[in-house]
Amino acid sequence: MFQADVQYMKAALVEAQKAFLIDEVPIGAVVVHNGDIIGRGHNLREHLNDGVAHAEIMAIEEACGALNSWRLVDCDLYVTIEPCLMCSGAIINSRIDNVCFGARDPKAGAVKSLYTVLEDSRLNHRVNVIEGLLSDQCSQIMKAFFRAARQKRKNISGNSK
Amino acid sequence: MFQADVQYMKAALVEAQKAFLIDEVPIGAVVVHNGDIIGRGHNLREHLNDGVAHAEIMAIEEACGALNSWRLVDCDLYVTIEPCLMCSGAIINSRIDNVCFGARDPKAGAVKSLYTVLEDSRLNHRVNVIEGLLSDQCSQIMKAFFRAARQKRKNISGNSK
Repeated sequence: MFQADVQYMKAALVEAQKAFLIDEVPIGAVVVHNGDIIGRGHNLREHLNDGVAHAEIMAIEEACGALNSWRLVDCDLYVTIEPCLMCSGAIINSRIDNVCFGARDPKAGAVKSLYTVLEDSRLNHRVNVIEGLLSDQCSQIMKAFFRAARQKRKNISGNSK
Repeated sequence: MFQADVQYMKAALVEAQKAFLIDEVPIGAVVVHNGDIIGRGHNLREHLNDGVAHAEIMAIEEACGALNSWRLVDCDLYVTIEPCLMCSGAIINSRIDNVCFGARDPKAGAVKSLYTVLEDSRLNHRVNVIEGLLSDQCSQIMKAFFRAARQKRKNISGNSK
């Protein structure tokens, strides 16, 4: 039985913080294998000009490199915000066993909010899901980011008057 | 109104053929912008040891590089086989306008078969979909691949007796 470990979500939050500091939507993820973090990622969509460059994808690809395999058997993924459709699909395609996410994404979440694709028995892989670990910190950093972005826009429109 | 053009599906089939020749599941994709192919991709999961390396993802990332933007506005994607959840999510995240696929994937397709995520009004982007262009060629190459793979397995088990 999967026991989510708070230390790994803290590592995912460190990744989210890295995104925050470079003005990316602050989501972070890590992939854990036998207790070791073998993949880390944070959202880099703007910096890489790449709509695929979500935190989970970056962490999964690093983990695939570490194991030299596309099958991330015996791996768990920790991510600060509920994965979207793309990242949920990548989790299934990579055969990740367990996913732990912090806070829900009611607008795009595909694990609990809009869809529950990780539990779909029609697909060739199913994933155990735990939600809510450090959810306050995971959502607070998102709120702080969007608050700052709104303030920035307000300042710009104020200056242009 | 999106008019699917057979020349682009032929280009996607050329990509699928490249995958076939290196023993990858033969799926190919291209991204078209103002009549030009700006991204090409074929499945490279085994060669890159990367579960994310589907044809659509490769084509989308090349197109993002060509436009220097994660928003693939005014872009169409042609792919030989119905996109999975991951690739459908990537299409939405990249804001692709139109998708044309050849043959359905009843086991993992997320555009028409298991899900219809590209038409989901709850998401922040919707995509026009056309299916069935050169569907026979698109499915034939898949059938040939899996037939050859079964034969190869049979030969191996025959030799080991």
